[in-house]
Amino acid sequence: MHNSARVALFHGVGQPFEVSRQPIVTSNEANVLVRVKLASICGSDLHTITGRRSVPLPCALGHEAIGMVAAPTQLRDAYGNSLNEGDRITWSIAASCGRCYNCDNKNLPQKCEGLFKYGHAGGETNVGFSGGFAEYIQLQPGTAIYRIPSALTDRETVPLNCACATVLDGLDAVGVKSGDNAIVQGAGMLGIYAACYLRENGCESVMVVDYREDRLKYAARFGATQTFNLTDTSVDDVGHAVQQITNHHGADLVLEVSGVSAALSNAVDWLGFGGRCLTLGFVYPGADVSLDAQQVVTKCLTIRGLHNYHPSALGEAVRFVEEKRDRYPFDALIGATYPLVEIDAAFERAQRGDLIRVAVDPQME
Amino acid sequence: MHNSARVALFHGVGQPFEVSRQPIVTSNEANVLVRVKLASICGSDLHTITGRRSVPLPCALGHEAIGMVAAPTQLRDAYGNSLNEGDRITWSIAASCGRCYNCDNKNLPQKCEGLFKYGHAGGETNVGFSGGFAEYIQLQPGTAIYRIPSALTDRETVPLNCACATVLDGLDAVGVKSGDNAIVQGAGMLGIYAACYLRENGCESVMVVDYREDRLKYAARFGATQTFNLTDTSVDDVGHAVQQITNHHGADLVLEVSGVSAALSNAVDWLGFGGRCLTLGFVYPGADVSLDAQQVVTKCLTIRGLHNYHPSALGEAVRFVEEKRDRYPFDALIGATYPLVEIDAAFERAQRGDLIRVAVDPQME
Repeated sequence: MHNSARVALFHGVGQPFEVSRQPIVTSNEANVLVRVKLASICGSDLHTITGRRSVPLPCALGHEAIGMVAAPTQLRDAYGNSLNEGDRITWSIAASCGRCYNCDNKNLPQKCEGLFKYGHAGGETNVGFSGGFAEYIQLQPGTAIYRIPSALTDRETVPLNCACATVLDGLDAVGVKSGDNAIVQGAGMLGIYAACYLRENGCESVMVVDYREDRLKYAARFGATQTFNLTDTSVDDVGHAVQQITNHHGADLVLEVSGVSAALSNAVDWLGFGGRCLTLGFVYPGADVSLDAQQVVTKCLTIRGLHNYHPSALGEAVRFVEEKRDRYPFDALIGATYPLVEIDAAFERAQRGDLIRVAVDPQME
Repeated sequence: MHNSARVALFHGVGQPFEVSRQPIVTSNEANVLVRVKLASICGSDLHTITGRRSVPLPCALGHEAIGMVAAPTQLRDAYGNSLNEGDRITWSIAASCGRCYNCDNKNLPQKCEGLFKYGHAGGETNVGFSGGFAEYIQLQPGTAIYRIPSALTDRETVPLNCACATVLDGLDAVGVKSGDNAIVQGAGMLGIYAACYLRENGCESVMVVDYREDRLKYAARFGATQTFNLTDTSVDDVGHAVQQITNHHGADLVLEVSGVSAALSNAVDWLGFGGRCLTLGFVYPGADVSLDAQQVVTKCLTIRGLHNYHPSALGEAVRFVEEKRDRYPFDALIGATYPLVEIDAAFERAQRGDLIRVAVDPQME
């Protein structure tokens, strides 16, 4: 453990990251100091660096990350077990108080009134080691921490605490039934986790829609039974295919993880009676969407939004990937890894969009 | 029982109803012939006569109705009891087969592949006694029939099989929790049933929004804790009031029964984290609505549509009104009753909108 460590700071749209050494101030004995092993670039990090959503500046980005406990701590993991130096861990993207109205009354700790969200904190005095794109991160009380099973590789584990946990929590909210015909809109990290989760939970068909063939190829390796590329297939043609595949009953479940405004309208068209739509992708301002409300009513549809996730979903995510790792090449979803000093190159690579995830390894030179 | 009876037929927008005597053809021994006691004019009947939605012509309108069993029948009520001549009954608005994909696999009998919907059938050869605006109606197998408890008056009972059952089924789908802060958009028949159901099920506040003061006064007698008249209160001001009333948590539940396209967008604005919106009002084509999808996602909202209802909800509706009739003047919701020959006047009266329901009594001269 060091008294100082390197952290990459985001200073605003169009500006390079600043990678500098900062003192590690252990402000709270109850925190957990974690040496970051790997951090991946999430779609919402890309929203931030392109200005689609705003953060306090400078900002310590990075919330999909794993690491090793780097100092003794009194904090325990989510199951109540003590944590030891050297434990490899993943953690909920936010710390919650557990006592406020949203935590206690609504059981939405991810909307805690005092929520602290990793990879989103900033400002001159407050930035600290709160993001994943740094050699260390300090975890606060109220963070759900899970040990990583030894069988799992770093690359298999790093996207679990954002992409995978969010998908699993959302699908739990809308329910997945054996025999369902499902559609996934968007073949990014969330869509790919969704495809294999849906397939492994008995969905009859898992149709994945995207604009990129390279991403759809990943989807096909992760449980998609059909893929549709919207660059050469019209929305109407997808609709006709959905009708055929579902024996003219329409889809039971649509998962929107694209953030594309037409997606919800298409979902409403493609769903059959009693259909459920889970929407996760609209995490930026100005996402006005238009819907045919008559279909929502007369087809008895459910549209469910979810943001962040209940911390317990991270435990489910770890279990799911541990159980299915022999069947799916989760490792391959991290398409490139860069050292911290090359974080600008890592973001440039991520923005090309052909890789599902690009990672930063803060320990790599 | 007669061999012929009078029925009112709708011939198209702007045309008067034709009230004529038609032969009663008992085409199926298994049918139940019912002497209609009272039929009320539903909002969707008004959509039909103004051309907002289309029906086969001529059409036997009227689906909110009650009557007396008028001939021996082998059919049983929804609890399996035999039906006798003279039994006063209410029935589900549609007959379902119970065996098709939508009935059996989806548990949505109201979307039966062979659905027969009372008050919506028509065409030169098919119109028959299938609507409530007639002296008799023939009920088919697959209709959920409930005996009306003797304590209930005809006027208390007639809107149960459309308005009340739909509201109760929808609220069951989204859940009502003790302590919820609820908003009802629209103070028509559905909104008024909803207000008293929400209040009786422990909602902390039941805020009702409409454009008409006369309807809001009814809402205040039926459980509304606050009413807002949008003719003199801006949507923003309603939003501020919602924030104050909910202690800045936002609403837990919004019920849209207005069919006004801005309603869903307002609902999304007014709901707090984890909020649920039940939408029932968009039962006409072209109901495009615009939503802020970011709020749907980041507030973890649920939007649920429902149309018709599961037949069992009619049993709940009968029980609910029987239990609460001493506390609410359900009788007063039928503001005027006309004989069948004056059905045009009845529809004109209903279109004025100041009465919650206008009824037709086919036995009245």
